[in-house]
Amino acid sequence: MALIVQKFGGTSVGSIDRIRNVARRALATAAQGHEVVVIVSAMSGETNRLLKLAHEVTQIPDAREMDVIAATGEQVSAALCAMAIQAEGGKARSLLGHQVKILTDGAFTKARIKAIEGSKIFSTVKKGAIAVVAGFQGVDENGDITTLGRGGSDTTAVAVAAAIGADACEIFTDVDGVYTTDPNVCPSARKISKISYEEMLELASLGAKVLQIRSVEIAMKYGVPVHVRSSFSDAEGTWVTKEDQSLEDVVVTGVAYDKNEARVVVTGVEDKPGIVAELFGAIAEKNVSVDMIIQSPAIASGPNGAGEGRTDVAFTVLKTDLARAKPFIDEVARSLEATSVRYDEGIAKVSIVGLGMRSHAGVAAKMFRILAKEGINISAISTSEIKVSCLVADKYTELAVRALHDGFGLSDAV
Amino acid sequence: MALIVQKFGGTSVGSIDRIRNVARRALATAAQGHEVVVIVSAMSGETNRLLKLAHEVTQIPDAREMDVIAATGEQVSAALCAMAIQAEGGKARSLLGHQVKILTDGAFTKARIKAIEGSKIFSTVKKGAIAVVAGFQGVDENGDITTLGRGGSDTTAVAVAAAIGADACEIFTDVDGVYTTDPNVCPSARKISKISYEEMLELASLGAKVLQIRSVEIAMKYGVPVHVRSSFSDAEGTWVTKEDQSLEDVVVTGVAYDKNEARVVVTGVEDKPGIVAELFGAIAEKNVSVDMIIQSPAIASGPNGAGEGRTDVAFTVLKTDLARAKPFIDEVARSLEATSVRYDEGIAKVSIVGLGMRSHAGVAAKMFRILAKEGINISAISTSEIKVSCLVADKYTELAVRALHDGFGLSDAV
Repeated sequence: MALIVQKFGGTSVGSIDRIRNVARRALATAAQGHEVVVIVSAMSGETNRLLKLAHEVTQIPDAREMDVIAATGEQVSAALCAMAIQAEGGKARSLLGHQVKILTDGAFTKARIKAIEGSKIFSTVKKGAIAVVAGFQGVDENGDITTLGRGGSDTTAVAVAAAIGADACEIFTDVDGVYTTDPNVCPSARKISKISYEEMLELASLGAKVLQIRSVEIAMKYGVPVHVRSSFSDAEGTWVTKEDQSLEDVVVTGVAYDKNEARVVVTGVEDKPGIVAELFGAIAEKNVSVDMIIQSPAIASGPNGAGEGRTDVAFTVLKTDLARAKPFIDEVARSLEATSVRYDEGIAKVSIVGLGMRSHAGVAAKMFRILAKEGINISAISTSEIKVSCLVADKYTELAVRALHDGFGLSDAV
Repeated sequence: MALIVQKFGGTSVGSIDRIRNVARRALATAAQGHEVVVIVSAMSGETNRLLKLAHEVTQIPDAREMDVIAATGEQVSAALCAMAIQAEGGKARSLLGHQVKILTDGAFTKARIKAIEGSKIFSTVKKGAIAVVAGFQGVDENGDITTLGRGGSDTTAVAVAAAIGADACEIFTDVDGVYTTDPNVCPSARKISKISYEEMLELASLGAKVLQIRSVEIAMKYGVPVHVRSSFSDAEGTWVTKEDQSLEDVVVTGVAYDKNEARVVVTGVEDKPGIVAELFGAIAEKNVSVDMIIQSPAIASGPNGAGEGRTDVAFTVLKTDLARAKPFIDEVARSLEATSVRYDEGIAKVSIVGLGMRSHAGVAAKMFRILAKEGINISAISTSEIKVSCLVADKYTELAVRALHDGFGLSDAV
C-alpha cells in the first residue's frame, strides 16, 4: 500500500464529464489498495472569469481581495470532485487551503508555502476516504486567504506530497510526459521515461512548461518522486526523480529553446570594478529579470564598441519587459558613459541539458560544431554544469533544435 | 458615532454597477462618522448556478460539499464589494465566515449560528475600514464550512449586529419596508414605520417575506433594532424594534395571507388520550411541518364524521409537502381506525396581527363579523395572543384581506 498524491489541472477538471474521469481514476488507484490525495485546479476558464469580474470593479484590484475571489475556483472544483467520487460509490472530502492548512507567507497573488499541516489529510485517508485538496491556495498567519500564482496547483501537489511523505506525486496533464524536445519543432522527439530534478529544472526554466519550476525545486529539496503523465491514458509518463547511475549514460537529455527573450548590448562601458554591479543593480530595482549575462570586449564591439579600458556588456531580458525596461536601461547607460545601447528582439536561446555533461568533456564544443555545420552564428554563450545555452538568430531556432536533437543522438530509437 | 450593520441581498449586489452603489451607500454612512459593517449575499442567480453545477455531478449532492460550493457565492461578492469600496477611495476588508468567525452547528445547508467572534470585525472598523462580511456562511467546530440555508444573510446580519453590539442593523431590500398588507392585493396598504418583533414574527411566518423569520427571532432575543429599507432610495423604511407604549394604540398592525397550505381532515378518530399525539408524532417523524391544528367534533363532521366517543382532527400542512405526506397520513389514519381522511388544497389562511389585541377585547369577533358580512365562510380558526387566523376558501383571499384591512382602519391615512 502506498500513499499517492494525484494532481489534476484545469483542463482535466474542465467539465463535469472530466471531473467524473478524475473521480474514476482516483478510485481506481484506491482500489489497488493505495491511499489517495487528489489536488485540483480550478475548472479551465474559471480563474479568468473571476479575474475579469474583479477587473470590472477596478483596474487595479487589491491583491488580498483578489485572492479571496480567485480561491473560489479551486474551492468549487474540489467540492465537485469530492461529490463525483461519492457519486461513483467512493468516500471523499474536500479540503481547502485554510482547512489543510497550507500556511504561506502574506504575499497575495504570489504567496510561497511555509509549512503544511498533514493531520487533516491523514485523518481523512485513514478513514478510507479520498482527500480532495484545493490547489493554488493557502492561508497566511493572519488567516487571510492567499494564492500561489498561476500554475500553483503543481506546487501545492508536490508540497503536500512532501509534507505527508507520499510515495509518489502524479501530475496529470494534457501531454503524456516530458519530451527530449518540442515535438512540434522536431518530430523525432521522444518521451523521456526518467529525468533528474536538476535536468528538469533546467528544461523547465528554458521553456518546457510541463511542470512549474517551483514545484520541481520543492520535489528536489524533499526527494518527492514526481510522475508527469497524461489525464487521457494509462500509459506511463515521465518520472522526475533523484539522479541515479543509469541516467549518466546519456550525455544530453533534452534540447530546449526560448523565443521570449531579447538581447541588450551596452557598449563601451568603463572596465572597472562596480560598473557592472551598478548596471544590473539598477535593472533589478525595477523588477526586470535578467537571464544570460556576457561581459567581454570581444562581443559586439564594432566601430563604436569597446576601446582601451572599455568593455561591452550583453544580457537578455524578457521581451515582455523590454518596453518598460528600455528607458531606464538607456538612463543607466548614459550615467555610465556607455558608447551605445543596442536592443535585439530577433534572437532565440537554444539549450542542451544533461547530467552526463559533468563527466563528458567537449559537449559544448560539439554543440558549437553542430550549429556551425548548419551555418548558424552564435551571438552569445552561457554555460552551467549541466546546460549549455546559445543565442542565435530566431529564424534558425527550429533548425538548431533539430540539428542538436539529431547530433546528440536523441532522435535514435531507444 | 454609531456602529451600523448594513445588509445587502442578492438583487442589491446583482451586478457590478449595483455593487458600486452598495459601496457608495456604505461610504456615505461612514462619512457621517459611523463605523460600518456590510453583510452581503451572493450575486443574484449565482447560488442557483452553483447548485445546478453540483446537481450535474449527482442527483443528491453531499451536504458538506454542497456548502463548500455554495459559500463561494458570498465569498466572491464580499471581495468584489470590498474592492468597490476601495475603488471609491475608501478602506475595506472582506471577511468570510471562518475568518470572522461565525461558529455554527454542523447541520450542513441549514446550520444554526452558535456564536460569533467579534474581534476581527472590531479590529477592522477600528482601523477605519469597512468590514465586508460574507453572509449566509459559517464554520462548524471541525472547521468545515456551513451555510445557514436560503435567506441566511439576514440571519448573519442580525447575529453579527447582536454580537458586536451594533446600534442598528439595516436590511436593504427591493421593497421600501413592511406594509400593513400586500399592496398587490390591497392598493390602500401603507408602509408601517415601526413594528414590534412579536408582530413581525407573526407577519413573517404568515407570508410577509421581507425579513427571514430566524433573523427576527435573533433580533428580538438580543434587542437589535432592525431597519428594513429600500436599496434604491434614501427614504426611511420600517423599524422593527422592542414594543413601546405608542405601538399599543393600534389594535391591528397588519393583515397577512398564505396560500401555501392545504387542509387535512381526519374524521372519526377515537376520542381518547394519546391518539392525537400518535397522529402528529407520526407526521413530525417524516419532517412534515404542521401549522394550524383544530380538534373538535363540530368541525367537518358530516354523515361519515365523528360519532359518539369519536372526534375529527383538522390541520394544515404545506402544499409542497402534501404529495409526500399523503401516504403515511393515510396509513396512520388507518391504524387509528379513522373513518376517513379528506384533503383540501383550495384554502387560504388570512390573519390579523397586532400587539393591541392583548388589551382590546372582541378583536376576533370583529374579524368574524367582517368576513361574514362579505359572505365568507370560515372553515377553521386559530388564535394566539397577538394574532387571529382564519381558513377560508382560497377564491375569497383577496376579498378577505381588503375587507379586514378596511375594517380595522388600516386603509386610513395616518
